[in-house]
Amino acid sequence: MKQITAPTLLIDEEKCRNNIRRMAGKAKRHGLDLKPHMKTHQSADIGNWFREEGIDKATVSSVAMAEYFFRHGWTDLTIAFPFNIRETERIRTLVEQGAKLSLIVNNAASASALNSGIKQPVRVYTEIDTGAGRTGYPASQKTKIRRQIETISRLDNLRFTGFYSHAGHSYAARSVEEIVQIHRHVLEQMRSLKKEFRSLAETVKVCIGDTPCCSKADDFTGIDEISPGNFVFFDLTQVQIGSCDYDDIAVAMAAPVVEVYPTRRQIAVHGGAVHFSKDRLATGGEPYYGTAVELDEEGWSRPLPDCKLSAISQEHGILSCSKKLLETLEPGDLIGILPVHSCLTADLMGSYTTFNGTHLSHMRNDK
Amino acid sequence: MKQITAPTLLIDEEKCRNNIRRMAGKAKRHGLDLKPHMKTHQSADIGNWFREEGIDKATVSSVAMAEYFFRHGWTDLTIAFPFNIRETERIRTLVEQGAKLSLIVNNAASASALNSGIKQPVRVYTEIDTGAGRTGYPASQKTKIRRQIETISRLDNLRFTGFYSHAGHSYAARSVEEIVQIHRHVLEQMRSLKKEFRSLAETVKVCIGDTPCCSKADDFTGIDEISPGNFVFFDLTQVQIGSCDYDDIAVAMAAPVVEVYPTRRQIAVHGGAVHFSKDRLATGGEPYYGTAVELDEEGWSRPLPDCKLSAISQEHGILSCSKKLLETLEPGDLIGILPVHSCLTADLMGSYTTFNGTHLSHMRNDK
Repeated sequence: MKQITAPTLLIDEEKCRNNIRRMAGKAKRHGLDLKPHMKTHQSADIGNWFREEGIDKATVSSVAMAEYFFRHGWTDLTIAFPFNIRETERIRTLVEQGAKLSLIVNNAASASALNSGIKQPVRVYTEIDTGAGRTGYPASQKTKIRRQIETISRLDNLRFTGFYSHAGHSYAARSVEEIVQIHRHVLEQMRSLKKEFRSLAETVKVCIGDTPCCSKADDFTGIDEISPGNFVFFDLTQVQIGSCDYDDIAVAMAAPVVEVYPTRRQIAVHGGAVHFSKDRLATGGEPYYGTAVELDEEGWSRPLPDCKLSAISQEHGILSCSKKLLETLEPGDLIGILPVHSCLTADLMGSYTTFNGTHLSHMRNDK
Repeated sequence: MKQITAPTLLIDEEKCRNNIRRMAGKAKRHGLDLKPHMKTHQSADIGNWFREEGIDKATVSSVAMAEYFFRHGWTDLTIAFPFNIRETERIRTLVEQGAKLSLIVNNAASASALNSGIKQPVRVYTEIDTGAGRTGYPASQKTKIRRQIETISRLDNLRFTGFYSHAGHSYAARSVEEIVQIHRHVLEQMRSLKKEFRSLAETVKVCIGDTPCCSKADDFTGIDEISPGNFVFFDLTQVQIGSCDYDDIAVAMAAPVVEVYPTRRQIAVHGGAVHFSKDRLATGGEPYYGTAVELDEEGWSRPLPDCKLSAISQEHGILSCSKKLLETLEPGDLIGILPVHSCLTADLMGSYTTFNGTHLSHMRNDK
């Protein structure tokens, strides 16, 4: 801890590897192909921890991220973001270099542009909006879905492979029961599509990808692949949803204490919006951006009671504290803070420090 | 525009230079030293545009940012963040290399640690909390302030220089009148301190630094220095506060359109939380993360009516559109989006593209 001078994202390697191992084991037990979403960690080093569990396929959220992981030896990559016509050339290059890409193509214009822009075939998924309201076809739009599959199937360089859905609405759940209820509805929709369109392609795979359902559901009948991402670190949001426990959270910010304000019961730390992101939670009270934990040389404690990161500006963090914590802290100390949203925190920090002092790679700092 | 394949932060050089020129001119007219806050742009290239207006002092929000601008030829730097004892060594190195630093030191422990950690004197400001409730002494705590100034003055390597205040509470204003009212109260507090503590030091400078007050106030009696930052770009938040007009906003995201949803009246773009940050506004309605503008080869339009970035996840943006805009857009097009908070958007993007295709530097990508 002594070497830490500025906000530093600590990673508990054991917790992280446990999260990976647990999900890999679950996928195996259910006969599912785990294609972990790398957008959370964006790290070739952490990618290797997945490899050690026998995982060799991955999901990414951008072409740039596909390029990064391809450079680091990942060949089978699903880009879980609607194909962007402007990136056709970059896709073509990746395919020519040997990447085995799966893409999401949800409209005829994109399908046609992709087909004429590449020279070797790629796998194509049609995205289903199972309730998140973000992208893809609502499962009920069977005529439109049929038309899109037929469009894809007519094109030489596109291989219709199946259906993909990110059930982002599971983030509104607040208990395992609610997660499972959403999951059941997702399953019904996806199975019905699989049945309906079985005859249109040689294989019709179904891939789903949110951390809450993949962590807590137990029935995956009809599902072939899962691509969750956040579970690698988890965070306070996932605790609130019910996907994990505090002890599963694998990253924490080490933030230097710069001021102590006993009358306000607050401390000021170096750690703000450029470190945590502005994601916030409000568990029946004022919104907060993180929860304090005690740090030592080997890890961090459970959350300290009533110690929340209550305000952030660009570099400043204001931690509202219990009287007890306040009495023990002084300028120059370090305090740990669990993030509300680990994906965005990791994206901003662009590196990880383990408890043995190793710095793990992040795409942001790839040379 | 044709070369743009992924989310790209465009900068309108003329608007940005106008913003710089206007603030430099205003400072000159009022006899103020402008020490622009570089945290908004974090760019040596944009720093040079300030130099061309005769500005040679700057403010930064971290030691890392001081190191960056020092490497790029800025010598007189104010670190407008409470001194962090853990960074003593880095401060010492900067001073030894010739940086003329001004630091903020708000407690005795920090003052003492700084004094023993450096070998050449630095200028020290005491921070005043004029209403923002973030860091510093409330102006009413005259006994504590006096004690802190005396502590600083007793230490060989610390030169008490004056008072600094960031009136962050001006961000709650919603009109020029409200901005001016807050400014007047800040002025009263700072003048009273200057008068009270005049005898304690050779010079007692007063520095204030928020964009709303520096942009809209006209009375700076008793103020010596200003250090606003956001005005270099402005953004939707500043329009809402009343600091600027839409036409002053100097950065806009170019986001590729990937899906069009006529029945939902929405389009999906590549442009999410890792591009915009999660800062949001809610002008009497649903929260939004940006406002759409039309892009052409030379710049962008005024905001399109009823076209807001209504939802973002890590890479996805959902733009809720007017029927009119929806009819003109298709996958592969680009749409412009004005950011809610330009500082955090620029920090995430780590580069700027001008309309003649030049890429401007950002600290995130400094080699």
